[in-house]
Amino acid sequence: IQEVKWDVDSATKEGYDHFMLKEIYQQPEAVRNTLNRRLDENGEVYLEGVHLTKEMIESFNKIYIVACGTAYHAGLIGKSVLEKALKITVIADVASEFRYNDNLIDEQTLVIVVSQSGETADTLASLREAKAKGARILSITNVVGSAVARESDDLLYTWAGPEIAVASTKAYTTQLIAFYMLALYFGKLKGSLDAHSYKEHVIELQSIDDSIEDTISQSMEIAKEIAEEIKEAPSLFYLGRGLDYYTALEASLKLKELSYIHAEAFAAGELKHGTIALIEEGTPVITLATQDDIYEKTVSNIKSVKARGAYAIGITTHKHKDMEQVCDKVIYINTTTSTYMPLISVILTQLIAYYTSIAKGNDVDKPRNLAKSVTVE
Amino acid sequence: IQEVKWDVDSATKEGYDHFMLKEIYQQPEAVRNTLNRRLDENGEVYLEGVHLTKEMIESFNKIYIVACGTAYHAGLIGKSVLEKALKITVIADVASEFRYNDNLIDEQTLVIVVSQSGETADTLASLREAKAKGARILSITNVVGSAVARESDDLLYTWAGPEIAVASTKAYTTQLIAFYMLALYFGKLKGSLDAHSYKEHVIELQSIDDSIEDTISQSMEIAKEIAEEIKEAPSLFYLGRGLDYYTALEASLKLKELSYIHAEAFAAGELKHGTIALIEEGTPVITLATQDDIYEKTVSNIKSVKARGAYAIGITTHKHKDMEQVCDKVIYINTTTSTYMPLISVILTQLIAYYTSIAKGNDVDKPRNLAKSVTVE
Repeated sequence: IQEVKWDVDSATKEGYDHFMLKEIYQQPEAVRNTLNRRLDENGEVYLEGVHLTKEMIESFNKIYIVACGTAYHAGLIGKSVLEKALKITVIADVASEFRYNDNLIDEQTLVIVVSQSGETADTLASLREAKAKGARILSITNVVGSAVARESDDLLYTWAGPEIAVASTKAYTTQLIAFYMLALYFGKLKGSLDAHSYKEHVIELQSIDDSIEDTISQSMEIAKEIAEEIKEAPSLFYLGRGLDYYTALEASLKLKELSYIHAEAFAAGELKHGTIALIEEGTPVITLATQDDIYEKTVSNIKSVKARGAYAIGITTHKHKDMEQVCDKVIYINTTTSTYMPLISVILTQLIAYYTSIAKGNDVDKPRNLAKSVTVE
Repeated sequence: IQEVKWDVDSATKEGYDHFMLKEIYQQPEAVRNTLNRRLDENGEVYLEGVHLTKEMIESFNKIYIVACGTAYHAGLIGKSVLEKALKITVIADVASEFRYNDNLIDEQTLVIVVSQSGETADTLASLREAKAKGARILSITNVVGSAVARESDDLLYTWAGPEIAVASTKAYTTQLIAFYMLALYFGKLKGSLDAHSYKEHVIELQSIDDSIEDTISQSMEIAKEIAEEIKEAPSLFYLGRGLDYYTALEASLKLKELSYIHAEAFAAGELKHGTIALIEEGTPVITLATQDDIYEKTVSNIKSVKARGAYAIGITTHKHKDMEQVCDKVIYINTTTSTYMPLISVILTQLIAYYTSIAKGNDVDKPRNLAKSVTVE
């Protein structure tokens, strides 16, 4: 039995201006807690709440990941890493669509549901629907004893602690950690991930908390600067390919929630098929380019928006100095394995959203029209 | 051997103000041509260019649909109808992501690529990538002898005729017809679609051209009216669930391309997970609600945007008069089977985009920043 105890003190701002900022700063610790409680002294992942055997994993011919909003964006990254590690087809879907989709689900289907609160109405309904069809249910949630937790076969709690700000930050990063650990655990169990890769991944993950901590302190000033530059923009685009695209989706959702700027994320290669018509002189376009294998392709997409007058901001790692030739501004972030770059890059985008909200005089912790846990359909 | 001959005369506007309007009006004929050339006197679908056998179809454990822009939106509807008809998992992806995704593709995978021009760079590269991994390739294209056509195992030409306007209309509706026919053909071949449903679907499709024709004439005035109402809006949202969501994606792309309004489509149930923060007094929200089984859920989403001050426009069928109680304006469109409603509802949204472009004084046939066929990555 796992117990997550929440201290009363942790529900105060503890000197931070907002709960959101406090929660951004808590991410290294939240990530550490979520990770270290599942690593033994030999660096082996063990997941107490997950009872799947090698035989069960081999029996699955498909995995669905179902969630809403920010948790869905974590699920997209989960989809990518699980499919690579397990060589099983993984499909991510938003819960409000999934539950009415008449999906092909049976005993050979694993359904992973993700919900910070464990009470999200559409996610819970999807869980029940899938369970009724015979699927095995694994859930990733932050609240012990929540409805989602109670009704699942397998459980992976995130150790984020209470999240008070409506806009999710540490819940998201700990959900990513949960997916990364699942990929390692299942990959090893199934034998689809070799011992060497496994070890390298664990080592990389073990230092990610420090890298996130550095990223927070390194990003404060540049995030404030960008907030001033974009705060009057009616529209903004976040671009990226692969994992960067999924981070772009989360980055733009965060900016929407907090700044009320109409931000939209695009797969960088897809923008030219219509949406590029919206780019005019000064339209801010923030491109994430942290994935080395598709870096050049992404740069060519930046060139095309720049040619239409966009104010181009690039986010990349230190080795890609040539980005300065195509962007108006380049922000360099810490380097880790491509797979884990979303944990680093998202931090900067959280701070951009946070400071843009402040620059516009918005209510950071309680943005208009929003509720923390969506228990209606 | 199929031959598609293009008349020189068809490349003039023939009295229409724009190629786009001409092409909108050509849709009943284009749909009729695409459909009727593949129906024999007994109402049986035959697809000359498709050589897949019952055994081959049964051997597939997964189907990918790969395309860009508007063709991708047709592919999303294709995904839905093919999965239902074949009981095989179908995944739609944009080509610029698919080609770098390291997908699980082998001889048991069917990859359907969709490209009006047959020369779209990312789509063609995806085709080659999948083919190299052993996948069977079926293509849906409008241009005989195009690269995509030449390199495919199976072919389904759309009989749209030349499309001159950059913003695609008749190419899209004929791509939908192609997918509907594939679903019928494969469903019957595999035996996963019963004879009665098959017959009913064919009958419904055989009158869809007339229904599209009616829809065009019925939509002109109301589309002009809406264009005047939305033309100054910086942002606009299209909502829908299921097939309506996919239509909403196409509707918002068309509006972006032509009016330069930042339109964005959302799965109606997903909006509340963040993006609803963007809704303020007067923000136009156009909701498609043509799918009876999820109608009530969609209405409750309209109520929530209306409560935040949205100017709510609803598009539904005649039986749902109660929509007038929750929307500022309701547009009733022709009724057909749920599956085919996208062919009707998209027509109205094409005309809304067309008249908004005119109301803003934009270049309808050649929107800024765009090219007709995207042969770069």
